Amino acid sequence: MMMSSLLSVLSTHDIEVAETLIGVIRFLLIFVAARTLAEILVRLSLPTIVGELLAGVLIGASGLHLLLPPSAHASLNEGFINVISSLASIPAEAVPDLYFETFPSLQAVATLGLYALLFLTGLESELEELVAVGAQAFTVAMAGVILPFAFGTFGLMFLFQVDLIPAIFAGASMTATSIGITASVFGELGYLKTREGQIVIGAAVLDDILGIVILAVVVALATGGALEIAPIVKLVLAATVFVIAAIALSRTAAPGFDWLLDRLKAPGAVVVASFVILVLSCFVATAIGLEAALGAFAAGLILSSSKNNHAIQQSVLPLVSLFATIFFVLVGAGMDLSVINPLDPSSRSALIVAGFLLVVAILGKIASGWSFVIDKPTNRLVVGLGMMPRGEVGLIFLGLGTSAGLLTPSLEAAILLMVIGTTFLAPVLLRLVLKDKKPGGGNSIPDEVAADPVGLI
Amino acid sequence: MMMSSLLSVLSTHDIEVAETLIGVIRFLLIFVAARTLAEILVRLSLPTIVGELLAGVLIGASGLHLLLPPSAHASLNEGFINVISSLASIPAEAVPDLYFETFPSLQAVATLGLYALLFLTGLESELEELVAVGAQAFTVAMAGVILPFAFGTFGLMFLFQVDLIPAIFAGASMTATSIGITASVFGELGYLKTREGQIVIGAAVLDDILGIVILAVVVALATGGALEIAPIVKLVLAATVFVIAAIALSRTAAPGFDWLLDRLKAPGAVVVASFVILVLSCFVATAIGLEAALGAFAAGLILSSSKNNHAIQQSVLPLVSLFATIFFVLVGAGMDLSVINPLDPSSRSALIVAGFLLVVAILGKIASGWSFVIDKPTNRLVVGLGMMPRGEVGLIFLGLGTSAGLLTPSLEAAILLMVIGTTFLAPVLLRLVLKDKKPGGGNSIPDEVAADPVGLI
Repeated sequence: MMMSSLLSVLSTHDIEVAETLIGVIRFLLIFVAARTLAEILVRLSLPTIVGELLAGVLIGASGLHLLLPPSAHASLNEGFINVISSLASIPAEAVPDLYFETFPSLQAVATLGLYALLFLTGLESELEELVAVGAQAFTVAMAGVILPFAFGTFGLMFLFQVDLIPAIFAGASMTATSIGITASVFGELGYLKTREGQIVIGAAVLDDILGIVILAVVVALATGGALEIAPIVKLVLAATVFVIAAIALSRTAAPGFDWLLDRLKAPGAVVVASFVILVLSCFVATAIGLEAALGAFAAGLILSSSKNNHAIQQSVLPLVSLFATIFFVLVGAGMDLSVINPLDPSSRSALIVAGFLLVVAILGKIASGWSFVIDKPTNRLVVGLGMMPRGEVGLIFLGLGTSAGLLTPSLEAAILLMVIGTTFLAPVLLRLVLKDKKPGGGNSIPDEVAADPVGLI
Repeated sequence: MMMSSLLSVLSTHDIEVAETLIGVIRFLLIFVAARTLAEILVRLSLPTIVGELLAGVLIGASGLHLLLPPSAHASLNEGFINVISSLASIPAEAVPDLYFETFPSLQAVATLGLYALLFLTGLESELEELVAVGAQAFTVAMAGVILPFAFGTFGLMFLFQVDLIPAIFAGASMTATSIGITASVFGELGYLKTREGQIVIGAAVLDDILGIVILAVVVALATGGALEIAPIVKLVLAATVFVIAAIALSRTAAPGFDWLLDRLKAPGAVVVASFVILVLSCFVATAIGLEAALGAFAAGLILSSSKNNHAIQQSVLPLVSLFATIFFVLVGAGMDLSVINPLDPSSRSALIVAGFLLVVAILGKIASGWSFVIDKPTNRLVVGLGMMPRGEVGLIFLGLGTSAGLLTPSLEAAILLMVIGTTFLAPVLLRLVLKDKKPGGGNSIPDEVAADPVGLI
């Protein structure tokens, strides 16, 4: 509090009221929109995550401008501004500033939700099965990275005369599967613990690692710096060591965790101790140059063999239900669909390039489902479709390329459409393919998990 | 993302890494410190909240400077800066800026925790009992506001020759009971559902309302403006209508909530629907000029008669265990005890004034326990001690007075010591008074709640 007179104290109080109002209205909008659409989609037998993304689109940058990430560079809804301004007695001009200033807090809560979801995914993983399908997951990840990257980059260069660097950016934006969206879809369909589910989750984790390496390489290329091998080797090494360490720890550290838990007497021990492991793992991952999200998944893996696994899941579920919803609504809210209006002639070339990228992005990942050798019955189409959603990872590439001024507006729009298309189509197609099929392939799912895979009660 | 070159993109990546590291290390510090102390205090039969406040003092502005609210105006721990700087490869000078820039996100999560705790307190309230003790709660609230205010203000003026306005500020800072701390202590001791617990919670809620009114009056006085009666009457009216409406709604709205819940099919319905009611109630409270915290408690009251009460409690508990802990650690971290070093001669006069305020603050609230008429056996000392903690509400008054330049350093220190003293002493004294006593007084507590009042499992 750095104020020099009581007048500014008074206005500080008004500002705090306005900030509180903005915060609660944003929560209200997110949950009412997301749940309304989720209820409709559940009745159409579609995963609720599609509803959450759609809710974001409806109230976000492409829709009502009520939920507007600062990166969207659009104007806030006038009605929203007027409501806040009149309720909190502050001038209307001050509302957008407060809105965007407080947005990082919402994003922080959403990130907590994403990490909680990845932690839960790790917890629900059948580690034996994940290790057993390691070779298949590796092949799927490699094929799912190489095919879209190669066809995307060369296709743009030779079919659409795009320059090398932007073509590489667009190609790279198609490589990484969004593990959050994939885990959510498989979880909700009750397919997380099947062989297909485990291959996809394993491959998506490897994709994340490959994505970090590709990002380093592409940025090095684009800045014209010498392409140094040493940092790349270091990254790959760090990632490999991290994943192997997590798998090894799940056999030795989980009993130690249980031992500690038995000795803790203060209430809330299970959820707090799990959170400490989660945060610790995120710290180690970030400190050695990997994504914190990878750390969250690894923490879940480590605790997956704890005898308190069920209690941990129960305590994480409310966090996932609340905050992962915010994350996915924010992903939808950040998408600006106005650039791909087919009635606008200037966006038609973008639509053609977008169509090309979308086809490459879909076929490249679907093809990865046929890239591996396995002697057990496995639904390869489910694996390929599971690898499809790009989500936030594709958006990060788009953001980097745009902010560096490397992409033409038409290529930007095309990449955005590719991300949106793969994100929305994957759950819908998966649902169509899996319609009326019970999870199979040698793995069984406990009834209580099948009844309520990612939700609570 | 507003960057003009890939170089700034690169450094943006480094900044993101630094921000993630700062965020996860803060979580780690908070939870490791809070849980270590909580485990020690549980073994001494003291409430864990004392451990959480102490943990904040240890790592906060009075201790290691690792958890440092921007309002503390102190320098961040050098070791912390060096660790972040070396791990994220950003210059050491940039670390404090990033630290303080990202602090509001932590505070937002802490606020969510406080609201979740108040919501849970409302849920656990026995509404019949709360209404039954309404008259007693009202008397306790009035006495607990008037006694410390009158004795504090006039005592400072006549014993210490303090001017009228600063004396009124100091007096006002002693009026409002911290409902968060009080609810947490009573919950942990298993005393939330006793007659004493309900009187204290009811009185603390009324105190919150009176606190808002007093704040408006004091600020109006201090700015020299005419003391208008209309806004004050409006506030009192709004508060009264709000509380009565919440009590009325709990009889009519809870069945409607249950009806809706039966029809919702998407997973996670219980926790999300409860959160929507919570947020909606906070919105209404804020919109009519009341504290959002009051809205959170009212939402709990409204849903307390829902047949899903137990399921709602189970889904809220993890949020409370994680995020309310952060809130209380932050309260402790914001306290700067260096101003009251008894070895420093300049702080001795502050200590004498502080001692006076502390005695008035303690006796004033304890006396309120004898202010009501009741025909059932009631432990009046428990009621008085329960009203003692001032916590964050006292700190708000302190912040307003300091920022307006109304208080001398010695009076500032004295108010701070009063807040710290009442906050720490209340749980300790309550534990001493209740030692070996089972909750009684006509109310019984369900075993599962008594075994785990605020924690989880």
